[in-house]
Amino acid sequence: MRPFFIFRDPLKGTLKAAQIVKPKESLEIQQLETPKPRGSQILIKVNSAGVCHSDIHLWEGGYEGPNGQFLKTTDRGVKYPLTPGHEIAGTVESMGEEAGGFNKNDKVIVYPWIGEGLCPACRIGLENLCDKPRSLGVYTNGGYADYVLVPSYKYLVKLDEEVDLDASAALSCSALTAYGAVRNADLKPNDNLLVVGAGGLGLMAIQLAKRVTGARIIAIDLDDEKLDIAKKNGADDIVNSKKYDPVKTVLELTDRMGVDAIIDFVNASKTVETDMQMVRKRARIVLVGLFGGELKLNLVTMPTRAYRLIGSYTGSISEMAELVSLAKRGVIKPVISERFKLDQATEALSKLKNGKITGRGVINP
Amino acid sequence: MRPFFIFRDPLKGTLKAAQIVKPKESLEIQQLETPKPRGSQILIKVNSAGVCHSDIHLWEGGYEGPNGQFLKTTDRGVKYPLTPGHEIAGTVESMGEEAGGFNKNDKVIVYPWIGEGLCPACRIGLENLCDKPRSLGVYTNGGYADYVLVPSYKYLVKLDEEVDLDASAALSCSALTAYGAVRNADLKPNDNLLVVGAGGLGLMAIQLAKRVTGARIIAIDLDDEKLDIAKKNGADDIVNSKKYDPVKTVLELTDRMGVDAIIDFVNASKTVETDMQMVRKRARIVLVGLFGGELKLNLVTMPTRAYRLIGSYTGSISEMAELVSLAKRGVIKPVISERFKLDQATEALSKLKNGKITGRGVINP
Amino acid sequence: MRPFFIFRDPLKGTLKAAQIVKPKESLEIQQLETPKPRGSQILIKVNSAGVCHSDIHLWEGGYEGPNGQFLKTTDRGVKYPLTPGHEIAGTVESMGEEAGGFNKNDKVIVYPWIGEGLCPACRIGLENLCDKPRSLGVYTNGGYADYVLVPSYKYLVKLDEEVDLDASAALSCSALTAYGAVRNADLKPNDNLLVVGAGGLGLMAIQLAKRVTGARIIAIDLDDEKLDIAKKNGADDIVNSKKYDPVKTVLELTDRMGVDAIIDFVNASKTVETDMQMVRKRARIVLVGLFGGELKLNLVTMPTRAYRLIGSYTGSISEMAELVSLAKRGVIKPVISERFKLDQATEALSKLKNGKITGRGVINP
Amino acid sequence: MRPFFIFRDPLKGTLKAAQIVKPKESLEIQQLETPKPRGSQILIKVNSAGVCHSDIHLWEGGYEGPNGQFLKTTDRGVKYPLTPGHEIAGTVESMGEEAGGFNKNDKVIVYPWIGEGLCPACRIGLENLCDKPRSLGVYTNGGYADYVLVPSYKYLVKLDEEVDLDASAALSCSALTAYGAVRNADLKPNDNLLVVGAGGLGLMAIQLAKRVTGARIIAIDLDDEKLDIAKKNGADDIVNSKKYDPVKTVLELTDRMGVDAIIDFVNASKTVETDMQMVRKRARIVLVGLFGGELKLNLVTMPTRAYRLIGSYTGSISEMAELVSLAKRGVIKPVISERFKLDQATEALSKLKNGKITGRGVINP
Repeated sequence: MRPFFIFRDPLKGTLKAAQIVKPKESLEIQQLETPKPRGSQILIKVNSAGVCHSDIHLWEGGYEGPNGQFLKTTDRGVKYPLTPGHEIAGTVESMGEEAGGFNKNDKVIVYPWIGEGLCPACRIGLENLCDKPRSLGVYTNGGYADYVLVPSYKYLVKLDEEVDLDASAALSCSALTAYGAVRNADLKPNDNLLVVGAGGLGLMAIQLAKRVTGARIIAIDLDDEKLDIAKKNGADDIVNSKKYDPVKTVLELTDRMGVDAIIDFVNASKTVETDMQMVRKRARIVLVGLFGGELKLNLVTMPTRAYRLIGSYTGSISEMAELVSLAKRGVIKPVISERFKLDQATEALSKLKNGKITGRGVINP
Repeated sequence: MRPFFIFRDPLKGTLKAAQIVKPKESLEIQQLETPKPRGSQILIKVNSAGVCHSDIHLWEGGYEGPNGQFLKTTDRGVKYPLTPGHEIAGTVESMGEEAGGFNKNDKVIVYPWIGEGLCPACRIGLENLCDKPRSLGVYTNGGYADYVLVPSYKYLVKLDEEVDLDASAALSCSALTAYGAVRNADLKPNDNLLVVGAGGLGLMAIQLAKRVTGARIIAIDLDDEKLDIAKKNGADDIVNSKKYDPVKTVLELTDRMGVDAIIDFVNASKTVETDMQMVRKRARIVLVGLFGGELKLNLVTMPTRAYRLIGSYTGSISEMAELVSLAKRGVIKPVISERFKLDQATEALSKLKNGKITGRGVINP
Repeated sequence: MRPFFIFRDPLKGTLKAAQIVKPKESLEIQQLETPKPRGSQILIKVNSAGVCHSDIHLWEGGYEGPNGQFLKTTDRGVKYPLTPGHEIAGTVESMGEEAGGFNKNDKVIVYPWIGEGLCPACRIGLENLCDKPRSLGVYTNGGYADYVLVPSYKYLVKLDEEVDLDASAALSCSALTAYGAVRNADLKPNDNLLVVGAGGLGLMAIQLAKRVTGARIIAIDLDDEKLDIAKKNGADDIVNSKKYDPVKTVLELTDRMGVDAIIDFVNASKTVETDMQMVRKRARIVLVGLFGGELKLNLVTMPTRAYRLIGSYTGSISEMAELVSLAKRGVIKPVISERFKLDQATEALSKLKNGKITGRGVINP
Repeated sequence: MRPFFIFRDPLKGTLKAAQIVKPKESLEIQQLETPKPRGSQILIKVNSAGVCHSDIHLWEGGYEGPNGQFLKTTDRGVKYPLTPGHEIAGTVESMGEEAGGFNKNDKVIVYPWIGEGLCPACRIGLENLCDKPRSLGVYTNGGYADYVLVPSYKYLVKLDEEVDLDASAALSCSALTAYGAVRNADLKPNDNLLVVGAGGLGLMAIQLAKRVTGARIIAIDLDDEKLDIAKKNGADDIVNSKKYDPVKTVLELTDRMGVDAIIDFVNASKTVETDMQMVRKRARIVLVGLFGGELKLNLVTMPTRAYRLIGSYTGSISEMAELVSLAKRGVIKPVISERFKLDQATEALSKLKNGKITGRGVINP
């Protein structure tokens, strides 16, 4: 069977990219051939490429699995050298002959969670959950470059002329993941929602839950500073789980009923174990984080308490378009804290790995 | 605060009931005062009371929990002496002054999963998932008796004159549990559904999935005879997991993709562990059985594979009314295999416990 | 068949009510027997009874139908003398022996859209859409009285001690109708919503759509003052249809695509005709107002443009509980503009009829 | 802005097509250049092209509108000469360099309801409801030809080797339209569904509603023969509206409540007027047919009876894939009654126009 999306070998050329040539080594600036878009492909001039935690996994060549084993990215189909970068905002540079809907220099963000197009998920617009994903910056070259080739103009969402591209880049991954999780929590205005982890994703989830669901929001974290920001972003209540017993505190805040939904942006053994002790009957426990580990799940409580454990992974292009609309009207506000040049890509990843970027870092090639 | 549903002390009277006076001892036939329905209450003359596995837990005073500990029913609010029996079909005997909608002698089945009425679940008609359940035959006296008091006429669904009451009784628990699970599996016609356990509930789930979803159904069990019946009831494929490797076989049957949904009527450590090895991305794993045990859940696969673990407990009164409609038109066919008199209640429970009732046993008081 | 909810004949007694004895005549203050709650009934001491447009229809004995004919309320099952008043907030006075969940003096609002309890709508908690409605203040005596009898404690939602009862009363009808309509519009954050009519219901719909959907909101009205308030309540854009061509303006505001959804709080021939000219493919046109008249609907555009015309009538008790939660946290703010004594009931209705109450009038018996 | 899907001018070549060169004139067999698929395009060798009523509108250059005016297809963007044919089944002939997922000679059906890809409908997989449709055989050359160019491999659904291509062709339009309507009717097993018109679409809707919803089905038509077939296909009750008063009969069949949902495959003034007289509160009236005319809609009944009028137009590619799965397992059975050669295209359209094809006609180029 014919494979999908063959990208020609990158030869020496005019496209400048920061590539992972070998895991764990510094990224190298490469001169690659600038691809010429064919068919419905479109070439984007990258203005902003977000630096995301999952880029670190690509850089390290894998991540730690449940039993301390190292899960290699190459076993999941990743190939090196690779240009990382899946949070991409920029302008339209050129278009294949079957592409349309855009003009040169239009500001756009790119939906990177591209699927094969034929599985049941893709058929309903959930390419992020495709059986055979082709994500940009993961399985194909991404946005740590001055240009990126997108397989179809359909993966673009147009931005207004006055929009800040750096802030917009975050909409395609961190904000989208937060939004997908909020949607999966299936909230009503009289629900109590617990957001576990008040980092970048948690804060965005709080903003979104506040504005599009009306639910009451409790944020939990170990860091008072983050919790203060959570409160300013819309959390009704905050709990420092270092200082207070989280289970006791959350039960007190909810008339001893427990919360109706949890979004866990950590998703580690310890957080989910705690989650399961403070949920009401019918609770939705939305698992988002990639920290991993094992949960010893008491099976009989699943039916008797009608719990739902819901894995949530990024979001759909329709949801990304909804975020673009919310950001345009100032309803949500992604925060960019640091900017890097392309040749600072290794530094950007190191800083993120060492917890030295508080908001979102962006590379401006 | 005023408690709900105070039933006066049962005094010596004309109502004949088979009660669990003390856990593990033979049920005793008691002469209780026949309650006079007040307000919107309604008194039902019991024709058929299904004998259900969960009655055995009430009889034994508890069940085994995750770590071999014994979980007592009295710790969950059950009080003895208790008349069990939550699958009740009969006729209207008399009505409180605020009750209506029925005439004396109308054939009815009773919805036993009664809630307090004020929690968010009750407010949307999901009394089966109430925070403070008042289920008939569990927390209040049930149908192992010639009469049963129902708190409101609203918990009745009218049956046609020609309907078989014995078969109808099963609609309020075993068929309802199967139907609730099928609904929670959220099936489309091009989904592959795996039904784990081809006993009474599994067979009903197969009948229902066949007729109201159009999905392709694979049934798995250890028993060839049950699997044959499963095939006759609508299973497209059957797998004997004693003879064949279930994971390998199911993957072969689904082009190596795995199934889109599983309904697990066992819900034991071993079955669910196996379940998790044969599911497609986005799979719904619906956990119904009360066998229990622990699952070591790999947390990181929840978001990356977008799985959903869904606890499913009985069903709503609206769903019970839907089953009544399906049974009336012959679309589903509950099977009754054995009938008992009221004074054979202990025998009925013993037989069920020892696996000697293949379909559904019914007590005819 | 036994009828529902027989209320004993009101005899001379201690309950003081403002009743419509004969349509079109002044309401009379009657001394009625105070009902003693039986079964699950509950007696509420009324603190606040909202004055609603639909009370005027009851007072006038009917309303004008499609062809100028007068549709009598008595033909729809209304019986006089009648105590109107379906927006009721107060305190628990006494309870029937099967009632529970509340204490004397608890602050509550009453859900008035009571159904028979047996139809498919009631079975899923949509008693407002019951086939045989028994609404309080319409088919049975309502809140223009110092006490009102409620058929079950289940129709109450508890309020916090510090809550303003006058403002809370509005949640059970005007706010609920607005909320039901917003839910029926099925909005996403990148939808354009048009709210037709910026009166009390329109303003509440704007507040709600802003806070629980994230959609962009355009408000349309003939009155600049109302439109100013709409803007302050969250409308992104406002259109005075007296000064500007509504169709042209709305198309300009939506890149000539038309809006994704309309909530029409007028629902007259003229407004809906205009609605149909400014809707995008797939639009939901939610019809709420009771102005009436005929629409000449072009049938072929229904499939070709995939329109949905959705009739929306009040809301469910679950939705009312959601509103209570939103109001408690200050997310929505019902506005009460005028207060009346019980013996001013006729005056209150007259003022409302003549458009002299801008917000919501409330009777404090 | 760059337009979409530019197809090069058809020059004299090797592709043989039956084209409408001028409305109302006989179709002409043309020799066109066989397009070479580029990008993600795919060239299909047509085996079967269904002959559909909407092809007649293309042939006649328009259709009659609400006030007797003639609505021209050219005003809606149709351009002549045009190769009609949107129900296409065939085999993969060749693929553009970005296409994949298929092998040469794979049996496929084509999803013809192609959208631009950027509107909110397209973003969630509802290209059939795109703001700027590019449907095959309507806006671009279709299947009345030996080859047809499809803009992307994503618009194909693979068929099994043993499948009958003639029967499969119907899945992409007539069966899909029936299925979309059944889905829009939002049916439960205890709903009463009325199917208006027992022609090809009605019969398919009956088959589908029977197998995937469990609802009780009443079919109405003027023709006893069709009604007999309806009964054999799953209708629980049939009504000949020529012989019996449809309103009276349907009310009798539904305990005087009316039906919960109607699917109207005629959608003419007269049928919809009748529909509105036999619906229960909360009814969904799904309008599918393109007969047209005006309905005088009583606006006030929309909210008071909570009706929903739902325009339904074809279906999504996901729904088409579901139909392929149902047809493969024999759950539904599309019927082909007559086969034509390519040079009989005019004859096929004439026969269909004159009501001389009872099932589905298919052209085999």
